[in-house]
Amino acid sequence: MRTHYCGEVSEGLLDQEVEVCGWVHRRRDHGGVIFIDLRDREGLLQVVFDPDREAAFATADRVRPEWVLKIKGRVRARPEGTINTTLRSGQVEVLGLEVEVLNEAKTPPFQLDEDGVGEDVRLRHRYIDLRRPEMQHNLRKRAQVTGFMHRFLDDQGFVDIETPMLTRATPEGARDFLVPSRLHAGSFYALPQSPQLFKQLLMMSGFDRYYQIVRCFRDEDLRADRQPEFTQLDIETSFMDEAGITGLVEKMVRELMAEVAGIELPDPFPRMTYAEAVERFGIDRPDLRIPMELVSVGDLLADVEFKVFSGPANDPRGRVAALKVPGGNALTRKQIDEYTQFVGRYGAKGLAYIKVNDPSLGAEGLQSPILKFLPESAIAEILQRTGAQAGDLIFFGADKAKVVNDALAALRVQVGHDLNLVADEWRPVWVLDFPMFEYDEADGRFYALHHPFTAPQVDSVEAFESADPEALLSRAYDLVLNGTELGGGSIRIHRPEMQSAVFARLGIDQAEAQEKFGFLLDALDYGAPPHGGIAFGLDRIIMLMTGAGSIRDVMAFPKTQTGACLLTEAPAAVDAAALNDLHIRVNPILKG
Amino acid sequence: MRTHYCGEVSEGLLDQEVEVCGWVHRRRDHGGVIFIDLRDREGLLQVVFDPDREAAFATADRVRPEWVLKIKGRVRARPEGTINTTLRSGQVEVLGLEVEVLNEAKTPPFQLDEDGVGEDVRLRHRYIDLRRPEMQHNLRKRAQVTGFMHRFLDDQGFVDIETPMLTRATPEGARDFLVPSRLHAGSFYALPQSPQLFKQLLMMSGFDRYYQIVRCFRDEDLRADRQPEFTQLDIETSFMDEAGITGLVEKMVRELMAEVAGIELPDPFPRMTYAEAVERFGIDRPDLRIPMELVSVGDLLADVEFKVFSGPANDPRGRVAALKVPGGNALTRKQIDEYTQFVGRYGAKGLAYIKVNDPSLGAEGLQSPILKFLPESAIAEILQRTGAQAGDLIFFGADKAKVVNDALAALRVQVGHDLNLVADEWRPVWVLDFPMFEYDEADGRFYALHHPFTAPQVDSVEAFESADPEALLSRAYDLVLNGTELGGGSIRIHRPEMQSAVFARLGIDQAEAQEKFGFLLDALDYGAPPHGGIAFGLDRIIMLMTGAGSIRDVMAFPKTQTGACLLTEAPAAVDAAALNDLHIRVNPILKG
Repeated sequence: MRTHYCGEVSEGLLDQEVEVCGWVHRRRDHGGVIFIDLRDREGLLQVVFDPDREAAFATADRVRPEWVLKIKGRVRARPEGTINTTLRSGQVEVLGLEVEVLNEAKTPPFQLDEDGVGEDVRLRHRYIDLRRPEMQHNLRKRAQVTGFMHRFLDDQGFVDIETPMLTRATPEGARDFLVPSRLHAGSFYALPQSPQLFKQLLMMSGFDRYYQIVRCFRDEDLRADRQPEFTQLDIETSFMDEAGITGLVEKMVRELMAEVAGIELPDPFPRMTYAEAVERFGIDRPDLRIPMELVSVGDLLADVEFKVFSGPANDPRGRVAALKVPGGNALTRKQIDEYTQFVGRYGAKGLAYIKVNDPSLGAEGLQSPILKFLPESAIAEILQRTGAQAGDLIFFGADKAKVVNDALAALRVQVGHDLNLVADEWRPVWVLDFPMFEYDEADGRFYALHHPFTAPQVDSVEAFESADPEALLSRAYDLVLNGTELGGGSIRIHRPEMQSAVFARLGIDQAEAQEKFGFLLDALDYGAPPHGGIAFGLDRIIMLMTGAGSIRDVMAFPKTQTGACLLTEAPAAVDAAALNDLHIRVNPILKG
Repeated sequence: MRTHYCGEVSEGLLDQEVEVCGWVHRRRDHGGVIFIDLRDREGLLQVVFDPDREAAFATADRVRPEWVLKIKGRVRARPEGTINTTLRSGQVEVLGLEVEVLNEAKTPPFQLDEDGVGEDVRLRHRYIDLRRPEMQHNLRKRAQVTGFMHRFLDDQGFVDIETPMLTRATPEGARDFLVPSRLHAGSFYALPQSPQLFKQLLMMSGFDRYYQIVRCFRDEDLRADRQPEFTQLDIETSFMDEAGITGLVEKMVRELMAEVAGIELPDPFPRMTYAEAVERFGIDRPDLRIPMELVSVGDLLADVEFKVFSGPANDPRGRVAALKVPGGNALTRKQIDEYTQFVGRYGAKGLAYIKVNDPSLGAEGLQSPILKFLPESAIAEILQRTGAQAGDLIFFGADKAKVVNDALAALRVQVGHDLNLVADEWRPVWVLDFPMFEYDEADGRFYALHHPFTAPQVDSVEAFESADPEALLSRAYDLVLNGTELGGGSIRIHRPEMQSAVFARLGIDQAEAQEKFGFLLDALDYGAPPHGGIAFGLDRIIMLMTGAGSIRDVMAFPKTQTGACLLTEAPAAVDAAALNDLHIRVNPILKG
């Protein structure tokens, strides 16, 4: 229907006739002439209608925003002074010769360039919202990313294999979306939270290198940045170790960021152990752009009378850590109170601090409600370790290590942003040597830090069983970029006896293991190769790349925080007859 | 872990040391030496262990089929007389220097090269079944196909956009898989039968060219060749007409078949109207490899006394057609009886025939129970129209046109295969000019032959409403290859008033239209461009390409005809507590 996209018409076409199709972005009268900015996915084009072409002029006169037009016209240079350098087509305009109305449009509920439109209005009229240049950009960038991934992985000998969406439900079905079966009365499928077991089975099938860009589902209470369905790039390989896998996918990420987003990442990415990440940043996904670190000072405070410090300092599961804020001396009492509230959300019972006026004066040069509790020598050493300078402030966390780490890690990021300390750079890091297990005091049992199929760093079942579970490290790895976890994976267990030992340590007895994962245990018995893999969160990669503020801005048809689609009004009620076919009914509503 | 895949070790590596990993395919002792055929995804490699390397020999001596090994060895030429020309590595063997057992394996439930293994055994141990070369080939071919599609469509400016899997359920939910919502008590999502409405919305959003390789779901009683979840290549474009869209995707299919399967397809593909396809082949997806056609002969038989013929010949909805079978004279009475039973499945009440011994003799040269009912002149004209030669046979169908077409179309294909009349070639055809509606006598209403969003061939609502519904043609098109429908699509309705008129003709009143498709009708109001698209069945394309006999042989983890996964035992029972979270319960089983 057209010869060119609107956004592609430029000086090269001067004096030629073109046909373009698109939406009326703006229409204005000026000196008896009508100007229409016609828009398509490649950009805007100015079309001018003179009154001497009566039919075209009359049509152009009645069109309204968002009408769909087909225009035939001649390309000419814009008069001097009207050149628009922000448009690809800004050097030219088209003299409209013929115009056809392909469709009319009601007045849209919001203008495409209107600021501050409520998100629910945008989502309800998503087909209009998606016309905005930001959304066009984000979704096209997303397609470029997946296109790059396909090409890169195809070229590396990976096989794109589809795994089922209707999978096995586990009895308790936590976080699973369930699908009642019509043909098997009373039974349910589950939508996959990830294709983990299927990709391991594909390694046992000898495919050697698998990948899939795959939809995953998790039915959890939605936080601001989660969606019930999300997409991951899922990868698994055989006969490769941690170095092999991380090296290969690191190359992919580096080339992806360079090619699709013009972002240069270091080669190689730095690597850091989990222990170091937690020690220095309180978290296993450190944002290395922020030049602040946690510094352990418990050893200096074990003997002080101030129990807030000495208690955790003497608790094997406790931690006392300092976080120096460069220039933090300028923080007001009110700001510090707000940060105290902030860390409270992470379980911290307070937020001690020292303002550093002049460190060369010792305690005299400092200002803090807790100074009186601390010996001079400890203070001197704290200043030394944190490298505090005049004008800085030092925050303290003292509690169970988990509370201190969570609180100071979050505080570090918050303060970093508040004080504009975040460097304008891209800082990837591999985090390695994760603990195998995490002990949950409330439940009184161990949980797998990654998942129960992750291999330990010991080879033999004997070594595994005789080790302190909390000291065992796993063969897991996470890739973090600017504080966002892009992907995570591990070398998997490939020997049935080790898998059984890990299940046992997790309190999963043999009957339960057989019930839930029997097919995996069986498969391990028939010649499973050493294998491992990784999964990347696609939505998060696009968010980082585009700077989008919400996951909803990198998906075409996202859901709200309650999992509703405002456009189609899903989920919806269903007839009793349809439910009856599925052998289920809706619970009666309990009146209270 | 390795330097080469097993299947890649060849003469170029003579005298070099290699490291390979893989599965023990065969192990045999021969003259005090152990031979192991090691297998990986690229093929087999023969490794020889001499007793003078004691450690390696001892290990090689105890390995069993499907154990996983890592072997280091030196490549050497095979002794003359032992060269295996069927293997890529068949000119060489590896002298094993070191061997490491990476994993042991139980004796597998079947041998990889065993014939006649029951499909349920294969599906239950799918991780072993997928090691077979055919399955490796099929799934890798599938990945090549999707890889090609991504590259082709990316290069053509198509944007790969993901649409939701958790979509809106329609009240009656026929054929929908439903997903109960936890956060919205009593409401359900539906898994998409296709992304039809979302891709139309993307056109209204201005993306211009969309595609997606997407999972779709249909909860129907499974015929041999259906799966509850299947994959389609989904395409939609704006500002293109039928010729533009079919031309573009035809190029894709032609290049795909040539590049991935070495199959040359004609350029351009032939085009045929629906009316012609039904007239000549009884069906809208004709297999053009079979050199037989239906020939209408009702006009010759309208006046005969034989009611079996004259009844349908005089019924406006009836048809009398002949199907000449080349060489069919040799069919036995028993074979003809079997074909009579066969057409009975399609509703035919009998299967009249004439055996042609010598057409030059007129009725004398023929043999048939119905000869006596037919005038000589009609017989002569039938012989003429069908071009029957000595040795042929003519079958007749006489009934409602639908019965005749269904029966003779199926008979044509069946006989074509039975008599080896199917040409060894690739015969694509576009079928065009479909009827807009099909009248269902039982329901007493019209149904859309494609779907209710397909545009009619008339432009104005007035012309649409004043036309005979059964005479209206749609702007739909199907691509058929060797009798298989590869894909189908249409130009869509882009004006709200035409969409409402089509809904009205289908008996969907305004309230129902608003309830089910309100968001689409709204979207059509705000500037919808002319648009259209197509969807290809990926599984079917791979089946054709690989010659797989079942859809289950081109999917990694298929389900049985009752929708069960024998490997994972999905679907499965779920705890009452989990269902309670979803506000549903399973119906009590009625005892009868």
